[in-house]
Amino acid sequence: MKTATVRKETVINGVNVEELFKTIDEVKKKATIAKFRFRADNTWVSGGHNRTSIRDFYGAGGEDTSRKTPFILDADEPRVLLGTDIGPNPVEYLLTALAGCLTSSLVYHGAARGIAIEEVESHLEGDLDLRGFLGISEDVRNGYENIRVTFKIKADATAEQLRQLVQLAQKRSPVFDIVSHPVPVSVDLKNDS
Amino acid sequence: MKTATVRKETVINGVNVEELFKTIDEVKKKATIAKFRFRADNTWVSGGHNRTSIRDFYGAGGEDTSRKTPFILDADEPRVLLGTDIGPNPVEYLLTALAGCLTSSLVYHGAARGIAIEEVESHLEGDLDLRGFLGISEDVRNGYENIRVTFKIKADATAEQLRQLVQLAQKRSPVFDIVSHPVPVSVDLKNDS
Repeated sequence: MKTATVRKETVINGVNVEELFKTIDEVKKKATIAKFRFRADNTWVSGGHNRTSIRDFYGAGGEDTSRKTPFILDADEPRVLLGTDIGPNPVEYLLTALAGCLTSSLVYHGAARGIAIEEVESHLEGDLDLRGFLGISEDVRNGYENIRVTFKIKADATAEQLRQLVQLAQKRSPVFDIVSHPVPVSVDLKNDS
Repeated sequence: MKTATVRKETVINGVNVEELFKTIDEVKKKATIAKFRFRADNTWVSGGHNRTSIRDFYGAGGEDTSRKTPFILDADEPRVLLGTDIGPNPVEYLLTALAGCLTSSLVYHGAARGIAIEEVESHLEGDLDLRGFLGISEDVRNGYENIRVTFKIKADATAEQLRQLVQLAQKRSPVFDIVSHPVPVSVDLKNDS
């Protein structure tokens, strides 16, 4: 999307906006390259401790095998939830996903608008009533009752521009959408294969 | 919840079921100890790279400061999504959260039912159309269109018991609930504090 404006920088906020606009143009011409499939493999270790391995994914029209080694993520429960506290617990991983996604959305879309960002910090809190998981009450949900996100941003922008950018981050973030709206999840047991 | 049955093992699947039943009894008497608040702090690094720090949480009636050091989690985007691929991306962290939570729910509730589990493996896949994030089409959602989870379980149980256990894991898992149903998320910008 070339405009009459001359861009001094092709990299803004660490995002190559020239590549970003090129990607947008390519997707507009051929929607199938926007189709991605991400994957995770998990192995239980003991009790609340399990390990996820993340590596290849499908996207941009083909299988992406560029990662030489997998990312390994240990999940566990803290002592008070009868775990050995080797890693964050799954609902803490969920906050990590949400924080990372809102931040990246903010930074990428800020870059696309030419807003130079210096610092972004966020604090997230989620309220969870364990009576759901324990099966003690059907009146409380199992997951977070609500999540609060607070951003602090330092950027070359007006307060109104920053407010709009935070709005845009929510409007575009995949994980914000996943948490805010229902996603169909199918769970199968396949012991014979 | 003592029954007439004599338990040979108080630890099943690495879960101290005596403690688990004690916790259930305590929560039944005093619901407030089931109230938890988990937290995450995120700092942007550059482009798609940001870092989440996880440590203290509130739960079981007080602030839990037992973790001596925080868990540090790097999120990034792969090269094809203009990142530097230093860590999994946020939607991969989301699959990690879901895998870990379903597995722990399965293992804990299996332990509570006296089902000895030997192995649990799961594979997760999520379909995502990038046209949502890029703002190219309002007809596709930003997040996963759907997620598929496949379990392989080795346990001292019948096929029917395992099928019920996989059902129970979905019924009780907090992250499964969060992904399957809407969670209210508030996002604020607080630059002056």
